[in-house]
Amino acid sequence: MAKHKITKEKSKSTEKLKEIGSNIVKDIEKGKNPVINFPLRNLSNIVFDQKTRTLKLGDKMGSRSFFNVAHSKKFLQTVEIASILKKELLETGKHEHLRGVFYMAKRTIPGTNVNIVDEQMESDDVIEDLEVISGLSREQLHVSANKMGSMVGNIILEDSGDTIDCSKLGRGGYSIPSITDELSFKKINAKYVLYMEKAAIFERLNEDKFWQKNNCTLVTSQGQTTRGIRRLLQRLSEEKDLPIYVLCDWDIYGAYIYSVIKYGSIALAHASGKLTIPNVKYVGVTGDDVVKHDLKKHLIKLTEQDIKRMKQVSEYDWFKDNKEWQRQFKMMKDFNGKVEIQALAARGISFISEKYLVDKIKNKEFIE
Amino acid sequence: MAKHKITKEKSKSTEKLKEIGSNIVKDIEKGKNPVINFPLRNLSNIVFDQKTRTLKLGDKMGSRSFFNVAHSKKFLQTVEIASILKKELLETGKHEHLRGVFYMAKRTIPGTNVNIVDEQMESDDVIEDLEVISGLSREQLHVSANKMGSMVGNIILEDSGDTIDCSKLGRGGYSIPSITDELSFKKINAKYVLYMEKAAIFERLNEDKFWQKNNCTLVTSQGQTTRGIRRLLQRLSEEKDLPIYVLCDWDIYGAYIYSVIKYGSIALAHASGKLTIPNVKYVGVTGDDVVKHDLKKHLIKLTEQDIKRMKQVSEYDWFKDNKEWQRQFKMMKDFNGKVEIQALAARGISFISEKYLVDKIKNKEFIE
Repeated sequence: MAKHKITKEKSKSTEKLKEIGSNIVKDIEKGKNPVINFPLRNLSNIVFDQKTRTLKLGDKMGSRSFFNVAHSKKFLQTVEIASILKKELLETGKHEHLRGVFYMAKRTIPGTNVNIVDEQMESDDVIEDLEVISGLSREQLHVSANKMGSMVGNIILEDSGDTIDCSKLGRGGYSIPSITDELSFKKINAKYVLYMEKAAIFERLNEDKFWQKNNCTLVTSQGQTTRGIRRLLQRLSEEKDLPIYVLCDWDIYGAYIYSVIKYGSIALAHASGKLTIPNVKYVGVTGDDVVKHDLKKHLIKLTEQDIKRMKQVSEYDWFKDNKEWQRQFKMMKDFNGKVEIQALAARGISFISEKYLVDKIKNKEFIE
Repeated sequence: MAKHKITKEKSKSTEKLKEIGSNIVKDIEKGKNPVINFPLRNLSNIVFDQKTRTLKLGDKMGSRSFFNVAHSKKFLQTVEIASILKKELLETGKHEHLRGVFYMAKRTIPGTNVNIVDEQMESDDVIEDLEVISGLSREQLHVSANKMGSMVGNIILEDSGDTIDCSKLGRGGYSIPSITDELSFKKINAKYVLYMEKAAIFERLNEDKFWQKNNCTLVTSQGQTTRGIRRLLQRLSEEKDLPIYVLCDWDIYGAYIYSVIKYGSIALAHASGKLTIPNVKYVGVTGDDVVKHDLKKHLIKLTEQDIKRMKQVSEYDWFKDNKEWQRQFKMMKDFNGKVEIQALAARGISFISEKYLVDKIKNKEFIE
């Protein structure tokens, strides 16, 4: 994203918040009870849209009005936090973590003993409300969460005026910031992006210069994928048309991590537009790999928790009609086991980088 | 560290493992029961050395012999894993994660149904044994753990042939690899290193270009400090004579994080030599700051767990005679509260970078 585009984005966000405030002022001037309307974020209003194949908010609307005892504190919090985001963040160009915004909002309401917010949960909730009210993402509102993850490979970025060549960052790589909306992609030679849930595998592939030999870019986090990384992968997919492959453990959690990247999640259904990647492909370990590469010895027995979660996940709308994933879940049950990516090390330390991934990607052995 | 120095290090490690193996072979050739001797790692042999002020192993030695039913499996594991580290890692120049080494060692003993290792705990334990047996650190044996943390600032590194200028890495920074022994410091303008337990604060300080305005380097992880980061900070202290300042929450966990960096930890007492930094200083939030900057509103009530842990930590050898820390612990008790670094945002989003840290470092308001 070029500099002027970022500035434009920022002023778009500021204008949007201003508009919300102006509408409230107009209501007051007309002697009306000020009201904020927005799509409901609760479970009853989250739908899996078969057309776009993403989790989305439905059509149900809610409202919050000032002269309603049940609403008035939340109304105040919403206005106050919108004001902090506009004045302290957007207008200064600064970004702040959810926790920092909480402390900025934790003030006593003048003339009372009551705090505007007492717990971070309250300010977090209002920030999510402001996302749906404004149609802007939390990142566009300059609010960050924990920073996580690394990137290496044939890609040159621009970030706050610095040009960063991710092919020249040694063993460590580029440390992905919590907000990736404002990075710009200067030059990309990579033919695809390989995202993996485990930093240990990233270090293996980076040490083996996998990205150099296979002309790609490697991205990792640790466990669940952060919004920042999801947005980065989405932008590489949408803006640069790069295929995104996801490498996970063969277990229900790996499958779920993949599905969140592809279809979205219930908690963040309202932000799907900025996060989901419908054409992402799974290149992680499969039950077929377990047979083919003689990994049965490395099966880890399913726990009750695994089995319960598998039942849940396999019944989700976005999995229940997916024959290939249902076959994988069945294999997990039949083997009564799961396999970690790292188990491939049993076939040789660099088996994953020299043989396994090269073959799978060449032969397009993906699960969709 | 220059290239030839790394190669020398590597061959030193290989030689050391070879020597351990040769001694076993000599025992066998002489018809003796092969024995491995090493300092004990259990609690009874961990001492706080008042002279160096670090946690260390004492003089008690243990041994492991092949013809002892209680020892023979552990003996076999030790030899087998030493062989994997030598052949698969040191001789190829590759590094592997603890989890990967486990899978490489998880093989059936020929002619039996018994695995060499069944759980990662077993191989991890043997790797720690090999550290004390060989006198080499896990990192020198090329075994890594999870990668974590970021660095920005006035420092130029060399890593696997790449030159990395940490002042030109945007909002993200350099992603610290799990093993930092092999980085070399090419050019350092920074006058000190500021390490913080929270990535959110790192992002605040980086966005405010704190390191540029104050000519320093910023390092963060998330929570407990990894071995890789401790070693990196130690090397910057020892090799480059840079002061290291640690920025933590004002709670018992923050104090403990600081103390681990300074004095070491019980679990890693055997590796203190490669990890501890005796002259590190604490620049984090204090009880005095709570008063001075009017943060009482942001005190978080102590839990039973906090109080229990505070009693434990305050009685540790390295804390019990430290008047200043005892005073801090007393203040926590008197306030019945703790304060997070992020609470400083209540005084203004950039209060921490423009005022708080600048003043504290200028006035040398440290706790040792």
